[in-house]
Amino acid sequence: MFKKVLIANRGEIALRVHRACQEMGIRTVAVHSTADATAMHVRLADESVCIGPPAARDSYLNVAAILSAASITGAEAIHPGYGFLSENASFAEMVEAHGFTFIGPTAEHIRMMGDKIAAKQAMASLNVPLVPGSDGELSSFEEAREVAERIKYPVLIKAAAGGGGRGMKVAHSADELEEAWRVARTEAKAAFGNDAVYMEKYLDRPRHIELQVLADTHGNVVHFGERDCSLQRRHQKLVEEAGSPALTAAERDALGAQVTQGLSKLGYRNAGTLEFLWQDGQFAFIEMNTRLQVEHPVTEMVCGIDLVKEQLRVAAGETLGYAQSDITFGGHAIECRITAEDPVTFAPSPGRVTTYHAPGGLGVRVDSALYSGYAVPPHYDSLVAKLVVHGKTRAEAIARMRRALEEMVVDGIRTTLPLHQRIMADPQFQSGDYTIHWLERFVGLRD
Amino acid sequence: MFKKVLIANRGEIALRVHRACQEMGIRTVAVHSTADATAMHVRLADESVCIGPPAARDSYLNVAAILSAASITGAEAIHPGYGFLSENASFAEMVEAHGFTFIGPTAEHIRMMGDKIAAKQAMASLNVPLVPGSDGELSSFEEAREVAERIKYPVLIKAAAGGGGRGMKVAHSADELEEAWRVARTEAKAAFGNDAVYMEKYLDRPRHIELQVLADTHGNVVHFGERDCSLQRRHQKLVEEAGSPALTAAERDALGAQVTQGLSKLGYRNAGTLEFLWQDGQFAFIEMNTRLQVEHPVTEMVCGIDLVKEQLRVAAGETLGYAQSDITFGGHAIECRITAEDPVTFAPSPGRVTTYHAPGGLGVRVDSALYSGYAVPPHYDSLVAKLVVHGKTRAEAIARMRRALEEMVVDGIRTTLPLHQRIMADPQFQSGDYTIHWLERFVGLRD
Repeated sequence: MFKKVLIANRGEIALRVHRACQEMGIRTVAVHSTADATAMHVRLADESVCIGPPAARDSYLNVAAILSAASITGAEAIHPGYGFLSENASFAEMVEAHGFTFIGPTAEHIRMMGDKIAAKQAMASLNVPLVPGSDGELSSFEEAREVAERIKYPVLIKAAAGGGGRGMKVAHSADELEEAWRVARTEAKAAFGNDAVYMEKYLDRPRHIELQVLADTHGNVVHFGERDCSLQRRHQKLVEEAGSPALTAAERDALGAQVTQGLSKLGYRNAGTLEFLWQDGQFAFIEMNTRLQVEHPVTEMVCGIDLVKEQLRVAAGETLGYAQSDITFGGHAIECRITAEDPVTFAPSPGRVTTYHAPGGLGVRVDSALYSGYAVPPHYDSLVAKLVVHGKTRAEAIARMRRALEEMVVDGIRTTLPLHQRIMADPQFQSGDYTIHWLERFVGLRD
Repeated sequence: MFKKVLIANRGEIALRVHRACQEMGIRTVAVHSTADATAMHVRLADESVCIGPPAARDSYLNVAAILSAASITGAEAIHPGYGFLSENASFAEMVEAHGFTFIGPTAEHIRMMGDKIAAKQAMASLNVPLVPGSDGELSSFEEAREVAERIKYPVLIKAAAGGGGRGMKVAHSADELEEAWRVARTEAKAAFGNDAVYMEKYLDRPRHIELQVLADTHGNVVHFGERDCSLQRRHQKLVEEAGSPALTAAERDALGAQVTQGLSKLGYRNAGTLEFLWQDGQFAFIEMNTRLQVEHPVTEMVCGIDLVKEQLRVAAGETLGYAQSDITFGGHAIECRITAEDPVTFAPSPGRVTTYHAPGGLGVRVDSALYSGYAVPPHYDSLVAKLVVHGKTRAEAIARMRRALEEMVVDGIRTTLPLHQRIMADPQFQSGDYTIHWLERFVGLRD
């Protein structure tokens, strides 16, 4: 196992990685910008190195400074956390070229999954489900009708050369198909000089469901079940659950088997997450994140696993040491992302935290780098705390989250704590029947 | 289920009960002395009533004031927590006589277990193991030799009329028995005018192992496994573990079966704990606590159960709804009791907490009523926080406790945090091979 790991990140995720390292007896090196000199991840790490001024491009994205910090401190491996350089294939290559271990997948797989078209092609070849649709361009209206009947309405006719919504028409039933076909082709011709169109299933009320995977370097791949991350505002997740209120164990297991077989063929290694849209029992692959995700704690709490320790173990060459059948799912977990933002306008609210008080008790986990007196800098992501709860049932988890939110104090700045209270108290959220559009309606962003 | 519960306690346990009630949709009434007006349990409860001046006998032990508080607030039930009135049979009777539900066992069972001789007789009749020994007075040296051979050396010869260590002799082997027999009888005769002696197994290096039980009012009794509470200083527990590093699952299951059968016969209800000395695979009943215990969280963390919610459910007449075979044990949990005491001299250290910062992350639970700016009053027990961790293995739990202790900040007063760091770092503690004498040697209280 590594003796010293450099953590190329800040905030709660740097602290998260530090905690795993410390429990494994691995010394940690924190890196920080001048704005983060008194940050929690710096205070707790065994060593720390300043890597530049506040702007992320000059510090947390400064590859040369980070590699130098690893060299001078004698670190053997680098954990990138999420964001910043975590999905930068060149960084992963440079880390390895300088003789350090990159705690994550190969540069090749990071690059493949970073190219969204290549990622979809790879997944299609591995039998991972994509959005159902025509096999490329539609040759005739008759073919359009056949495909629509196979994949079921509503369907979307899209310009092959298109983009930006032009040449894109929805048909909700067979009655609407001819009109959609005609208009889409006319618009496509006008916009792109090419009337070729193809068809996809139109997902009008999808959920965002993702699958957590982990692979060692010996060909063993497992999944740790799904997370439901449908509660999003402008593609930013606010609340995540494990498991999904919508998915059955059989659906999860079937998807999991397909995905783990595929990734094993691909030779994937370390942690990763496949994101899907899900509707009416069908999964459609969106993208794969080749790193640890913000919402990984909900998976840890239902599976009883420490994902960061697992990342470290497999990066050091250890075998998983367990099989898919050893992984069980217990209870229900929910995470609320607490951000330093106005809970109504979402305007950023950096500044000094006069009082920070974390909730406690059974089934409550707080991942946060806040402390009383800490000044949240204005330069970075607004996430300041992840409040995670586990309960025997979803109802117990919601009740626990509500009481934990009530106990939590972050004074001096505005946070989204009140918004999370409102979400948890909402009967529709409580019913579990929501889609990726629900939260934007809830906060008044759409009708 | 109850709509409103009065919590007849203070500090972390009042908060613990409040949390369970809140998650179950039960309104809470806090009671407090004038010294506790700004205490956390008062701040979080739905209602609060001042029941007297700081001295516990005038407030938290003031039965009339507590019953009045329950009446004026319309509470339906009273949870006594631990300490104070929790094992006061008369209080339980008066609670019920005034038409409230006492969340705990019957007054009859509280009284029975409060009388240590009656408790032992009851347990003997229920086949719960006591200290092995002679069946009353020894009639001859030959009988002494026979009993010693049956229960195995070392044995203790004790004056039947004795007390205070007089007329008490240990024989470590058959060679020493005759001398011990002679001296014990001579001393007994001289001290008590009666040379009758009996024999007990001498436990020279016992562990303190206790069993958590729960019974509904319909005759169903289950146990939630054992806790090892051998780390004591002057009979005060400092560190508790679940499970015991010494016990096998088979030993636990065998004891559990005996105890649950016995308590079912007795008609016991609600939560309780049977405390045993344990050595060389043998249990010897010491006493039964007819209440929730300070160290209940370690059991909750390995069993995935909320004991306070279970207490509330069975007090309201619900059936357990699960069988012994549904209860499983996962991983390992450790609790450190953080007290407001000097970590070397154990001198009390009440006063204002300038900064309180709870540790966080995976597998860490904090039960504490502390907050930044809170003044720990000098009038009550010095326990200010219970830091509880759960890990897949005992080694992981220890590593997690060490990093959590490092993160925890309680400034302004002295606490036992440094002592717990020393204990967790000690190779003998880490080996799991300790007895009830270990901690007193560790802190220099005995050789």
